Parts: sequence; C-alpha cells; structure tokens
Amino acid sequence: MLPNCHSALLTDLYELTMAAAYFDSGFRARASFELFIRSLPAERSYLIAAGLEQALDYLERVRFQPAEIEYLRRQPVFEHISSGFFDYLHEFRFTGEVWAMPEGTPVFHDEPLLRVTAPIIEAQIVETFLLSTITFQTMIASKAARIVDAAQGRDVIEFGTRRAHGPEAGTLAARAAYIGGCVGTSNVAAGQQFGIPVFGTLAHSFVMAYHDEEEAFRRFQQLFREHSVLLVDTYDTLGAIDKLINAGLRPAAVRLDSGDLYELSREVRRKLEAAGLRQTRIFATSDLDEYVISELLARGAQVDAFGVGTSLATSKDAPSLGGVYKLVDVYSDDGPSYRAKLSGGKATHPGCKQVCRGFAGDGMYCGDVIRRCTEDCAGAEPLLACVMRNGRKNGPSRSLQKVREYATQQILKLPAGIRRLDNPGAYPVRFSEELERLLDEFRSRFGQPVGKRAP
Amino acid sequence: MLPNCHSALLTDLYELTMAAAYFDSGFRARASFELFIRSLPAERSYLIAAGLEQALDYLERVRFQPAEIEYLRRQPVFEHISSGFFDYLHEFRFTGEVWAMPEGTPVFHDEPLLRVTAPIIEAQIVETFLLSTITFQTMIASKAARIVDAAQGRDVIEFGTRRAHGPEAGTLAARAAYIGGCVGTSNVAAGQQFGIPVFGTLAHSFVMAYHDEEEAFRRFQQLFREHSVLLVDTYDTLGAIDKLINAGLRPAAVRLDSGDLYELSREVRRKLEAAGLRQTRIFATSDLDEYVISELLARGAQVDAFGVGTSLATSKDAPSLGGVYKLVDVYSDDGPSYRAKLSGGKATHPGCKQVCRGFAGDGMYCGDVIRRCTEDCAGAEPLLACVMRNGRKNGPSRSLQKVREYATQQILKLPAGIRRLDNPGAYPVRFSEELERLLDEFRSRFGQPVGKRAP
Repeated sequence: MLPNCHSALLTDLYELTMAAAYFDSGFRARASFELFIRSLPAERSYLIAAGLEQALDYLERVRFQPAEIEYLRRQPVFEHISSGFFDYLHEFRFTGEVWAMPEGTPVFHDEPLLRVTAPIIEAQIVETFLLSTITFQTMIASKAARIVDAAQGRDVIEFGTRRAHGPEAGTLAARAAYIGGCVGTSNVAAGQQFGIPVFGTLAHSFVMAYHDEEEAFRRFQQLFREHSVLLVDTYDTLGAIDKLINAGLRPAAVRLDSGDLYELSREVRRKLEAAGLRQTRIFATSDLDEYVISELLARGAQVDAFGVGTSLATSKDAPSLGGVYKLVDVYSDDGPSYRAKLSGGKATHPGCKQVCRGFAGDGMYCGDVIRRCTEDCAGAEPLLACVMRNGRKNGPSRSLQKVREYATQQILKLPAGIRRLDNPGAYPVRFSEELERLLDEFRSRFGQPVGKRAP
Repeated sequence: MLPNCHSALLTDLYELTMAAAYFDSGFRARASFELFIRSLPAERSYLIAAGLEQALDYLERVRFQPAEIEYLRRQPVFEHISSGFFDYLHEFRFTGEVWAMPEGTPVFHDEPLLRVTAPIIEAQIVETFLLSTITFQTMIASKAARIVDAAQGRDVIEFGTRRAHGPEAGTLAARAAYIGGCVGTSNVAAGQQFGIPVFGTLAHSFVMAYHDEEEAFRRFQQLFREHSVLLVDTYDTLGAIDKLINAGLRPAAVRLDSGDLYELSREVRRKLEAAGLRQTRIFATSDLDEYVISELLARGAQVDAFGVGTSLATSKDAPSLGGVYKLVDVYSDDGPSYRAKLSGGKATHPGCKQVCRGFAGDGMYCGDVIRRCTEDCAGAEPLLACVMRNGRKNGPSRSLQKVREYATQQILKLPAGIRRLDNPGAYPVRFSEELERLLDEFRSRFGQPVGKRAP
C-alpha cells in the first residue's frame, strides 16, 4: 500500500518546514525530545510499551528518495527555500542516540517511552513516524493485556485484521497483541513477518458454499484432521453439534460465533462430553472484549479459547492515546539548556528524564518517580536504556517471544488493584523534586508577562 | 513497514484453510460475495464510500511470493495438504469481476459497497484485505464529511497522522478525509502519493528551540513569507500576538492550539484587526471534532480554518464499522444458486443485489431499495457499477479531486435531517419484496430442524 515504507515523507509537513527554517538559520544544535503519553484514557490503568522495534528499523533506514525531494521542491510552501536545503535532504540520515523502555514494559502517564537525541533537524523529521508507530502498538498491547487477563489463563487469539485501520494496522496490531499476551493471530502476514503462531478456523461462507453443513464439516475434517476447527453456527448451533457427532467427526475444536455464548457453550459441552468428545475444545468469537469474557467466565461459560477481533485490533473503547513528542533539551558548547512548553493545561517538564520504578520486598512494583536523567534511581529500577547510538541499533533485538514473556512477567508484578477491570487503583507516579524545581525555574524565566523578553 | 504491500498473506489464515479445502475437493465454482456494513454506528447517520481504488489495485496485483508459499507449507495446519494446492498458489491471480459503488457515494446499512464474483477460492482469499481497506477508508471519509459539514464552509485540514493506527493508516486516512471534504492534509506522503494539498505550520518545539519566541517567529516569517503560519500558544497566546504585531510580522495565519478557543479567537481577531492585519487568518487546532467546531461557530468564534487530528484519523467516536463480506450466490452450469446465513441475529439476504436510490422532484435523495440485481430500479438510480472484469480495472479511475467533488455534491443531495449532528433522521432503506421472498424461501429450505438434510 505504501510504496516506500521507510520514506521520510511519512511525516507532517511542519516537520519539514521547521527543518528548512533550522537549516536556513544555521541552527545545527543537538536536541533531545521525549515521547510520552500525557494522560491515560479513562478506560486504561496501565499501558504496555510496544512498537520500538519498528521505530528503530525506521530510524536506521529513513531516507528521502530523489522523486520525493522533487515533489517537495514543487510545493508552494517551499518556493523561497534555497537549494542547499534540498541537497541536505539527499544526504539525510538519522545519526542520533535513542534511549527507550524495552517493549513489554508497563508504562504510565508522563513517562518517556523513548528519548531521541540528535541534531535538531533529524530529531524533528522523525517525530510523526515515531509517534504513530509507538503509540499505536502500545495501545494495542495494552488492550491485549486486559483481554488476556480477563480470560484467566485461557488462550486469546487476535482476530481483528479485517476491522483494523488498513492492512498494515492489522499486521502491527497482531504483533502488539502478541506482546500483550495473545497466543497468536489470524493474520498470516504477521505470522510470516514476526514469527507469531497463526490460527484459523473456517467461515460461514464455507458451510454455505456446500449448502449441506454436514458435507462441509466432513470435507474440512478429512483434510485438516487434528487441526480442524469447525464453525457450528451457520444455521443452528446445537443442530450442527448433533450433526458432527452423528457423523463421527472428532474436530480439535468447535467455534461458536453468535447467540448466547454462555448458554450455548454449556449445552455444547454437555453434548460433546456425552458423545465422548472430551478433547474437542470450545472456541468462542463474536464481538468479545475483556468485559464480555470476564462476565462469561464469571457465570461459568464453558469456553477454552477466545478469538477477539474488532475491540482488540482497534482498541475500540480507547482508540487513541494522547502521545506527544516534546523538546526537553538543546545542547550547545556550554552544555544542555532545558526546554519546556508552558501552554495552558499542556505544560511539560524540562530536561532529559529517567523513569525509576520502585518495588516492594515481594518484588511487586509499588510506584514510579520520573527523575532528571542525571539523578540516581536510589535503589529503584531505571527503565530507559540506550538502544541506539550514531543511528545504529545497539546489538540485536530480543526475539518477539522473549518480549512477550517479559511483558507477561512484568504485568504479574503490577499491584492487583491496577489490573482490576472495574475501578482499578491508580499506580503512583510523580516527578522528582529536582524536576519540579527545574519546571518552576523555567516558568519564572520564560512564563513572562507580555512584552518581557527572555534573558 | 510491510515488506510486500500486495502480498496475498495479508489475509486471515482461515481464508487459506478454506481455499485448501475447496481445492482438495475440486470445488471450483464461481461465487459472489457482497461487502456491506450490517448496521451503522449510533454516532453515524450516513457513510461515504471510500477505499475502492486501493482495493482494485490490490486485486490486480495480489500474488503469493515463493517465500510466502514456503512459509505456508511449514505451518502445522497445512501438514496434510497435498503439494498441488501450493502449486496453485504459485499461479494464483485474481481473475474475477467486481461491481462497486463509486467512491464518494453515500451509503447506508445493508447496502453492498462491493460485489466480487470469481472462482470461490479467489473470492475468499481477498476477503480480509478488501474488508480492511474499504471499511477503514469509508469510516474516515464519513467522519470527515461530518466535520466538514460542521465547519460551515471553513477549511478543514486533516492533521491526524501521528495519532493514526500506524503510518499507513495515517496516509490512507488523509486520502479518505480528502474524499470526505477536507481541503488537505499534513501528511506529506499522502500529498505525494495521492496529489492531496499539504499544509503545515510549526510546532511548539520550534519556538522552544529558540527560547526567544519573537526570534523564532521572525526567522520562520522571513523564510516562508506569504506561506507562514505562526503557532502562538507556546507560552502565552495573546502575548505572542502582541509580539508579532510589534515586530511588524504579517503571517498568512496564526494557529491557536490550546486554551479557550472561543475567547482567544475573538481577542486575537480584535488585536489583528486593530493592527491592520486583516489578511491574517486564524487557524484552530487542539482536540477538535464536529461537535466542538459546531459549538465554537454557534457561539461566534473567529476561526477561518480548522486542523483536525485524532478524532478524524481514528474516527474516535466510532473507530470501527461492522463490515462483513458474505457469500450470496454460487454458480453452477444450472445458473446461480442463492446462499444466505441464518445465524441468530446475523441473517443475510441471499442473491446478488443492486442498490436503487430514489430521488424527489428537487433532486434530493429520498430513500433506497436494495433489490435483486436482476430487478429493474424502476426510475431510481442504480448505485453499483461494474469496475473490474477478468481481474483488470475497467478503464482509468477518476482523479481523487473528481471523487472529492462527487462526494461533496452527493452529500448535498442528502435530506438535511440526515446530516444533522444531534438526533439525525433515519434515511429509508428497505429490501425489495423479491429479496424478502428469496430469504423466506431460503429460510424454509435451510433453516431446517436438527437432522433434516437440505435437498
């Protein structure tokens, strides 16, 4: 769909107009930007960091192609820009340093997931891609973690590609959902690209194509044998179960996709057990989310695995995170010089930061302090690590399987109250005294009354 | 991000397991599938069809690459599948016929946006990609149309790439938003790829980088001259307006991005007019949507153009459409043989359909009848046209500009009550008597009690 997936044009125009202005005025200083979520959606009490791998791949490969630069030259907004800037774009590479939370780490409001330090033009041009890639996957991994939690150890499979925001979104959602604890996906491209286990059943159309449900079941079962999952609700769920039992079929699982899943699952289980099909699992789909799954299981539904589509692949109840990417430091020969935004209600703390995660005697996490990166974490766990230097990744990435295991372990360390679906507790996050002092200092210098100039 | 944007692996695994089963049993019949939205989200009273162009591009180019086929062969689920199927995948092409509503057409519940007729394996494999591509763009174009309507003739620019579901979603959202009536986008890749006008201002980071707001403004203004849009809320909005006036700057526009946009816009307008800057437009951003815009304008806010991000690029209040792709006909030497799904609450009407849109004497649309494709539209306008034969597009596509104009004209033909934000009217849509009769007939034949076999 995208002719060039690492195109530097995958950005907002203002990144390029600012780049042109920096270039024109000889502003070449290095600067640090931090990417964070200003506040969590009301429907989320924690997030799971994801998307770093794609972000770093992009930073290593991002380029302007000649045709892209020609396109830019022709835009009216660039008509007064000297050709030196376009020559610069030909040579453009990302040469900076990145600190980041590992994928799979729980993350809360205001905590930098990523810090980019690079010549300011480079750091600016990559903003849009980084925000979109990291906040999207983080959003999906977080939703997946909630759904997997609600399933209480039963398998959850990501099934949402068809409802995702385009084919790429579906593929990245499958990756993020796997990090969040799903056992696999229906998306075959994600399976191939990321090594995620793929799962599939059959569709109503298959049953409908044969007209005769039993014939459809028999053909599918003969071919797929121990891998066969039969969809039983095309015409009448319980009737279909009787048919497959009478035909002597022994599918690995049956899939329920409509009706009252509580009632049907119990009745289906009774029929299967009575017929000696104890190995046949019951797989449920149909507009599921963490609340529906939680209620089904609380009532005693007989479901062994859940396929979750729309609500997972679009994070339907919270389909965006307020991700921002803020300038915090500009470096000159005299060292760093803090930056902050003071706009009404949107103030940010100046200076590069580290997130220090405290843990209790039992190893459970108990609260975070966001500190100036030069402060000591004082026994707490520092979460941001250097993952890229001079535009190259620091060594190979962890496998996606390892990332998933790490996420699972991390989630278990969150206080139980944080993971509760209803009225979850708030995880304690605060800024260090030093950062609060810096913000006050900055405010008193730059939050000046109209007309007063900064020193 | 996606190594191969026309990969046939961009599908759900069950499309491929079904394909294997059809192949194995020699089921080669042609079949028709229809793509439609079962019911509109509560927040939408009409949709605008979009995404067809990318769907047809994909159908012309979809292939399995050798490495992809090797990947499939290695999957446990395919272990019993004979190599003939994988040979078939090597040769796989889409050779079918497509009927579709033109992009930009208003569409309602149950109305096919697209009908695919092809050998059943081909029609099945492309399901997931078509659903994701068409429902996503349709969702965004629909959201854009509402926002543009609320802006009452003022420009609306799509600004949401950073909050979209990944870079591709952002790029496709920009395209769909343009169809829905936006004047442009901030997404430069969308600008290049689709010829959409691109817009950009500057970010807080630019002002922050210079520390001195006036210096930042001056540098930007000197460089971009008549194209300059200055962001004025980094520290203090009204103070910034005073600064740029005192410095003699004459930007094309100022951008407000925080605070009370109603109060600020009026105060900024007063200051600009008092200083003789009548040409300087006021551009507003900051968590806008159709409701906020509508209220701002009703109160008398002085805004000339709106930049809308998150709520548009994610269709935040309705971030998914229940798009489905249903088998309606299977063809044999004896002609078509209808298919329908009868699952509880999810029944579909059998047979290929046409949507007939009625209009009143004044040319306004007044209601649709979904008919069997062989019925006559009886003076109403048939909406589905043949757009692909034998896997090739029927001639060149309309330009995106033409699509946008068409959409704008179409929306004007909708009854005003349908376009109302609060308590909109319901547009009349019904199935023809012939289709209702077909469904009844089908139900009486196949909605049989347990154990009774279809004839």
